[in-house]
Amino acid sequence: MEIKEGDEVLLYLNDKNSWIVKIEKGKTFHTHKGVVKLDDIIGKSYGCEIQTNMAVSLKVLPLDYIDFLERIIRKTQIIYPKDLCYICFQANIHPGSIVVEAGTGSGVLTSYIANLIRPDGKVYTYEIREEFQKIAKKNIERLGLSKYVEFKLKDITKGIDERNVDAVVLDMATPWLVVEEAKKALKIGGRFVSFSPTINQVEKTVEAMKLAGFINIKTIELIIRRYKVKLNETRPETIMIGHTGYITSGRRAS
Amino acid sequence: MEIKEGDEVLLYLNDKNSWIVKIEKGKTFHTHKGVVKLDDIIGKSYGCEIQTNMAVSLKVLPLDYIDFLERIIRKTQIIYPKDLCYICFQANIHPGSIVVEAGTGSGVLTSYIANLIRPDGKVYTYEIREEFQKIAKKNIERLGLSKYVEFKLKDITKGIDERNVDAVVLDMATPWLVVEEAKKALKIGGRFVSFSPTINQVEKTVEAMKLAGFINIKTIELIIRRYKVKLNETRPETIMIGHTGYITSGRRAS
Amino acid sequence: MEIKEGDEVLLYLNDKNSWIVKIEKGKTFHTHKGVVKLDDIIGKSYGCEIQTNMAVSLKVLPLDYIDFLERIIRKTQIIYPKDLCYICFQANIHPGSIVVEAGTGSGVLTSYIANLIRPDGKVYTYEIREEFQKIAKKNIERLGLSKYVEFKLKDITKGIDERNVDAVVLDMATPWLVVEEAKKALKIGGRFVSFSPTINQVEKTVEAMKLAGFINIKTIELIIRRYKVKLNETRPETIMIGHTGYITSGRRAS
Amino acid sequence: MEIKEGDEVLLYLNDKNSWIVKIEKGKTFHTHKGVVKLDDIIGKSYGCEIQTNMAVSLKVLPLDYIDFLERIIRKTQIIYPKDLCYICFQANIHPGSIVVEAGTGSGVLTSYIANLIRPDGKVYTYEIREEFQKIAKKNIERLGLSKYVEFKLKDITKGIDERNVDAVVLDMATPWLVVEEAKKALKIGGRFVSFSPTINQVEKTVEAMKLAGFINIKTIELIIRRYKVKLNETRPETIMIGHTGYITSGRRAS
Repeated sequence: MEIKEGDEVLLYLNDKNSWIVKIEKGKTFHTHKGVVKLDDIIGKSYGCEIQTNMAVSLKVLPLDYIDFLERIIRKTQIIYPKDLCYICFQANIHPGSIVVEAGTGSGVLTSYIANLIRPDGKVYTYEIREEFQKIAKKNIERLGLSKYVEFKLKDITKGIDERNVDAVVLDMATPWLVVEEAKKALKIGGRFVSFSPTINQVEKTVEAMKLAGFINIKTIELIIRRYKVKLNETRPETIMIGHTGYITSGRRAS
Repeated sequence: MEIKEGDEVLLYLNDKNSWIVKIEKGKTFHTHKGVVKLDDIIGKSYGCEIQTNMAVSLKVLPLDYIDFLERIIRKTQIIYPKDLCYICFQANIHPGSIVVEAGTGSGVLTSYIANLIRPDGKVYTYEIREEFQKIAKKNIERLGLSKYVEFKLKDITKGIDERNVDAVVLDMATPWLVVEEAKKALKIGGRFVSFSPTINQVEKTVEAMKLAGFINIKTIELIIRRYKVKLNETRPETIMIGHTGYITSGRRAS
Repeated sequence: MEIKEGDEVLLYLNDKNSWIVKIEKGKTFHTHKGVVKLDDIIGKSYGCEIQTNMAVSLKVLPLDYIDFLERIIRKTQIIYPKDLCYICFQANIHPGSIVVEAGTGSGVLTSYIANLIRPDGKVYTYEIREEFQKIAKKNIERLGLSKYVEFKLKDITKGIDERNVDAVVLDMATPWLVVEEAKKALKIGGRFVSFSPTINQVEKTVEAMKLAGFINIKTIELIIRRYKVKLNETRPETIMIGHTGYITSGRRAS
Repeated sequence: MEIKEGDEVLLYLNDKNSWIVKIEKGKTFHTHKGVVKLDDIIGKSYGCEIQTNMAVSLKVLPLDYIDFLERIIRKTQIIYPKDLCYICFQANIHPGSIVVEAGTGSGVLTSYIANLIRPDGKVYTYEIREEFQKIAKKNIERLGLSKYVEFKLKDITKGIDERNVDAVVLDMATPWLVVEEAKKALKIGGRFVSFSPTINQVEKTVEAMKLAGFINIKTIELIIRRYKVKLNETRPETIMIGHTGYITSGRRAS
């Protein structure tokens, strides 16, 4: 595929150093390994290599959703892919799903859901802090997912406007305050999923879910272990993320 | 939503006991808590309760993809949701993705991918054992996902027919034998993901990936921990699944 | 070393099948692989093999503390070696230590401590259930550790008789009720360690420790992972013990 | 207990800031919270508080083995308490044990064993790098454990001088080269334990052990998880040590 002006590409030096660059005529891009003339890239194909003025080769690669997501996550560190994808599994999110989500935060989870429910689904995302909503809108816009998202500047503990939705997904400080409202918003058989860093939040949420008559109530935690794989030197990495949060899920039964 | 003849529903007694039942006129369904007349359900709404002849109440719930998946997984125990969803994340699978997969096995991973790439994507799934392909076809059919899947009775280590695909996903004994072929099949920037139970398979696959010039090579393992959550008695469950497999991923760069 | 009448030995068939046997003249010992005449063993050396009447070879091995401990643990499953040894580390237990312990239970932790504090240390172990104390006394007797242990049929939450002890070690349902008493019993700089299965017990104990002015308060959990190691098939075991308990420790400062 | 000249004490400000100080007449000790006159401490009792010239209170506490060990470990980070104590459990090390150990390194494992085998046991510790042996000797000396340790400047893969020992414990790069020698050195029923960071070392060692006829061959890994315990905010710590090493053990049978 030919690269043209206006495209965003990934300039790749190595696994630790790569940059997202917008191709603009007459512009240059500066790296610690030298300067690239962007004009040199126009008309080439993805997978090509270009030279910096320090004679270092960079690969030109196409961008995908994960490139963007990993950059947003690196900055915010709020929620990790392992949790994002398991939350969406437990919520049975797929093309066409109608989902209520809170809080929007920087929009990582929102974008993840939006990317999965295309083209016929919808995410209604609640947030009370306007500055976060703005960041999220920008992130979702950049990912080209805006038309699948409706942003709401509202306190979800005060009520959910939607009815008969497929899933309610929460990543917020007080999920237990939303359980009753989530039940009203969900269709029968619909799925509720909440992500919380402390075990005390989990206890309160599970109690509220039991009280509200949810079924299939489960709490799990995912621990990710990275490996250094090298012939005759294979071992798990020394430092790891020890905890992100617990995922609690259940289902509306009546 | 009104329940009609021919629908498949979930009869729910409790979290340990629930049954998938097809509603047929004049038929009965037997449980250890008594017999249900299916005629009694026709015309009712999801969320209703019906009585067995032993006066036990059962909830009637709609089925979704996860209900089916969990039943298939319980029987085969080959690959778990935590791995399914992380594999699909690493492979950047979403609506519209074109994916090559092997081996088909009982079709769990195939169905998971097919459910995510709807309506415009496609899964090409390779398998050499005809009896497995048959089981998988039946499972995929039941899930209503057949039109997104092309089944191939071929040895993927001998070659991949497709070109310019978004992702190659492997759950097979000798993934390292597919690395070179996967590179040819993938588009530039496309993603390769392999799931293996032993660390030796991982070592061989990573070596082959390095040799083939893949970038962003990573190996991780996901450990899932279930919790018993109860006010004042919260703790992880005593017995857990200690290991399923390692997930190795990378990206075609040239 | 020559084996003589009255010795207890280990008859070893394989890792899954071995038996502790007391050598008595004229007696036989029955296994599913045949019968052994114990007279045949007398006068032989450890490491020898004897034949059953079904011509199966058994190794004759000396017993050590761990052989006994593993058998007691297999029956009671209350506390695991990983926790036993870390508890004793955190409590700084070594030859000469004076230790208060509760509850005695079946004596597994008691025996472990007694084995480490020999020959000049002492364990004072509290238990309120007489039937458990009896079992523990029998276990400790068999291990030859009785002279290092003083058994007390007392409720430790009502008070600790000892003063100026090196460590207080708890494996009981309500450790937080012992924190104040433990402080009085400990010497300045002495160490307090508590083992609890639920996180709620941990919260209450830590709160009580903070209130009582303990320093270096820490809570950890040890997860043990067993591996199947085989050339080219190495992997963690599929089923594992997911949780035993949390270990909370601290130190008396004033 | 009265503090006198020449004693080493712990000056404790908080859990993050404490210092080991030797009490010398006329001397002062400087901290970021002010200066302490050591004369003020002489004649006081442990548990007392003294003021710096900035009017900050410090607790004066007695030192124990763990205070020293934690300081050595913080500097070297070679082997962690969770592993130290489990290694010694698997090796059945207790008062009176005769143990061969390699490599000495900075002496952390040596000191741990020496502390447990007192007063009648002995550790024979092998090391080929003289500079490490010097560091270890100094550490062991400071801990007052020298008389339980014999330092050997020898390559253990070339042979073990001792015979009929209770345990052989290895923390070195090539444990598989010692397996045959360890078997000769061990008494019948004696225990072999090896600690290795990579899974490849484990594979080689286990193969060598099988070949040499060891029984009860096991490989485990201990994962330690630290918790932040606070009423209503309890959770595992975010960053954790993901891997230290694998512990392989077995027993000489003949």
